[in-house]
Amino acid sequence: MSTSSDPATLAVLVRQDLGMSTGKTAAQVAHAAVGCSLKARKQAMSLFERWRSEHGRIVVLAIDGIEELDAHREEAQTHRIVHHAVSDAGRTEVAPGTVTVLGLGPAPSSVLDVLVGHLEAL
Amino acid sequence: MSTSSDPATLAVLVRQDLGMSTGKTAAQVAHAAVGCSLKARKQAMSLFERWRSEHGRIVVLAIDGIEELDAHREEAQTHRIVHHAVSDAGRTEVAPGTVTVLGLGPAPSSVLDVLVGHLEAL
Repeated sequence: MSTSSDPATLAVLVRQDLGMSTGKTAAQVAHAAVGCSLKARKQAMSLFERWRSEHGRIVVLAIDGIEELDAHREEAQTHRIVHHAVSDAGRTEVAPGTVTVLGLGPAPSSVLDVLVGHLEAL
Repeated sequence: MSTSSDPATLAVLVRQDLGMSTGKTAAQVAHAAVGCSLKARKQAMSLFERWRSEHGRIVVLAIDGIEELDAHREEAQTHRIVHHAVSDAGRTEVAPGTVTVLGLGPAPSSVLDVLVGHLEAL
């Protein structure tokens, strides 16, 4: 295990306005984490390898709704941080195409802190 | 999107006896999903590619505790199904080393149905 004081972290932001169940939330967060990790493997291999060697830290954070999600997505694009928004097929709980969660990273914790350090853990 | 009637699916079994929060549960399920997808990419590439092309179906299921988790893990080993158990570092909520969730697959839904079709969705 790395002893880095700035571990690579994957953050997943979860919309709280949709009232998703625990199981639904967990599945959406898993989709975001898989999407981000596979993108990072292609687009940011050294960060991906570092994240895996540091035990693949994942944090789950609460956001209010789609405006906040879109703002964080734009910010990730601006700063070229790997990100993956999950659109739900809408078979259960939410309307088809609803964007439910946004994965950010893996990125250095210090970078994520600037972007989402103000959000509360879910 | 594939029109397969037997889509490749990744199932994550979540211990209900630990009383984990929604955020904790989601993070553990995400660890299992990432672990399974990266293992599948190496050990079962065609199934992995099929799963991705079919939108990477993920289901989250409830189990009572560690005995049930271990039984499913042994079953997965016997049937050579990709699996990944998550041990928590224990910084929050549960004791260090506690095995919290078990990911199974991706595998054909028909195969998973035999093994975990009796479990309820979380």
